Amino acid sequence: MRLGIDVGGTKCLALAVDDEGRVHERRRVATPRGADSIEDALVALIAAVEESTGTTSSVGLGVPGLITRDGVIVSSPNLPDVENFAVRQRLERRLARPIAVDNDANCAARAEWQVGAARGHDDVLVVTLGTGIGGGIVSGGRLVRGWNGFAGEIGHVVVVADGRECACGRRGCWEQYASGTALGRLAREARARGASWPDSGSDAVDVRRAAESGDGDARRVIDEFGRWVALGVASLVHAFDPSVVVIGGGVAHEADILRAATQRWLGEFLYASHVRRHPSVVLARHGEDAGALGAAFLDAGDSVEDVRHS
Amino acid sequence: MRLGIDVGGTKCLALAVDDEGRVHERRRVATPRGADSIEDALVALIAAVEESTGTTSSVGLGVPGLITRDGVIVSSPNLPDVENFAVRQRLERRLARPIAVDNDANCAARAEWQVGAARGHDDVLVVTLGTGIGGGIVSGGRLVRGWNGFAGEIGHVVVVADGRECACGRRGCWEQYASGTALGRLAREARARGASWPDSGSDAVDVRRAAESGDGDARRVIDEFGRWVALGVASLVHAFDPSVVVIGGGVAHEADILRAATQRWLGEFLYASHVRRHPSVVLARHGEDAGALGAAFLDAGDSVEDVRHS
Repeated sequence: MRLGIDVGGTKCLALAVDDEGRVHERRRVATPRGADSIEDALVALIAAVEESTGTTSSVGLGVPGLITRDGVIVSSPNLPDVENFAVRQRLERRLARPIAVDNDANCAARAEWQVGAARGHDDVLVVTLGTGIGGGIVSGGRLVRGWNGFAGEIGHVVVVADGRECACGRRGCWEQYASGTALGRLAREARARGASWPDSGSDAVDVRRAAESGDGDARRVIDEFGRWVALGVASLVHAFDPSVVVIGGGVAHEADILRAATQRWLGEFLYASHVRRHPSVVLARHGEDAGALGAAFLDAGDSVEDVRHS
Repeated sequence: MRLGIDVGGTKCLALAVDDEGRVHERRRVATPRGADSIEDALVALIAAVEESTGTTSSVGLGVPGLITRDGVIVSSPNLPDVENFAVRQRLERRLARPIAVDNDANCAARAEWQVGAARGHDDVLVVTLGTGIGGGIVSGGRLVRGWNGFAGEIGHVVVVADGRECACGRRGCWEQYASGTALGRLAREARARGASWPDSGSDAVDVRRAAESGDGDARRVIDEFGRWVALGVASLVHAFDPSVVVIGGGVAHEADILRAATQRWLGEFLYASHVRRHPSVVLARHGEDAGALGAAFLDAGDSVEDVRHS
């Protein structure tokens, strides 16, 4: 059994899973404030899970924010009281066993790669559309970590030089055009121009449902949004040439209409489109569990060389 | 001794080099037209080099255009009579020895990584500024090839959605803003606004020299151009987080003023700039020999897993 923990801003979710990713045990605790309290909470959570499963073969953590390859949480927007917290080293000392740590978006990507929609592929792009855009890249059968450990910050690929202001302080970042937040904005703009569909309180979900029901205005919004998603995906395909692109996040959940629009626009945007195989655009298989699930596989599927580096 | 051949549109350059990349033998022949003639010319060229060096330990080819991982030249703008030419397979049958083949830009990147400005780094971005932008990516100690073998087409990363028309048929590609061609355009635009500096016939070189001599207008052009280079570099840094960025190509040759402008703007464009180590921007060490030199190292420096794939 493997143990993965998604350390979120409000809760920590622990999953004990087998090598196929099936969940055998699930536990959740509130995330306390501050590094010392988080460390204590994680130790207790691991003990609680292993009380029912027995000792697990590996323990991994997925953490939001910038995580070094040594498992130091440099900074995390969702854990405001935490800075330069060497969570890996501290847990390893306390528990006398190896602990793996990575960014939660990298973990979600790993879940899709190891036991999800991209299983069996060696070159994978995972794009998670939420408040911003998260993601992860698998290249040649290994998750790309980078020098600092900060690879996969694909939401900050610039698609419009000097474009919309981003929360990161720069301009024109992809997540200003192709995140769930951006889809909500496109939906509201369409409504302001006179489009009309049922309002349940979530603009991004409403426009998708209306498009699935055949509403023409809503379909145009999804098509425009799919074009923005595909534009950024195409740039990453030109750089890494993956065989599959996994689209996840709340607005993509079961959204085949969005998947299809992205696949079609990607064909338009690819360099040498007619002489290359196009990557398949597929929907993520794992939803809210993806971070914890991928954390459980942090030690798996990389070569010896990568383990040496991490 | 290793043998590398750069198959260009007009000539093939063969270099016999040692493991440090020192050139021991250099030969050049005109590139004939058509696959059969190219095959014959390459066989003769290899024989001619080995007549003076003895049998080499490895033979690699760098070829412009789209090259699959199996060494098939799918299409090549500089070899107009060649299409779906299985050059690797055909040479291997004819010579009864392994032949490695990759895109010439990937080879140039490999030269900088193995025996050039990025030696010793595991995560490298090489950007070659010429008519367009070529490049190569090293991630976790391996050159990124991708599913088709088409990774590293970084000139077609989109930096301005719906921007300038590109020769590839799409819009807003980075090479429309940050190639040698684009620098020439910026220089001509500055002249049209009244800027004045010595004219030797190459706008891109002239503006660089004028900037180095302290001309204020020329310095502004180099700064604007460095900003465009850094904008695309930053997107790739966000995706795969390299420790070094190598800038090559004719306009970058000994251009420390351009290197410095790119480094400065990169600092402005990086996500979480203040909590990360910034990659060093350095100039390429190898010029026109880079393609052949990197081709000589095509079998080197990758893990067993990569060799299995190629």
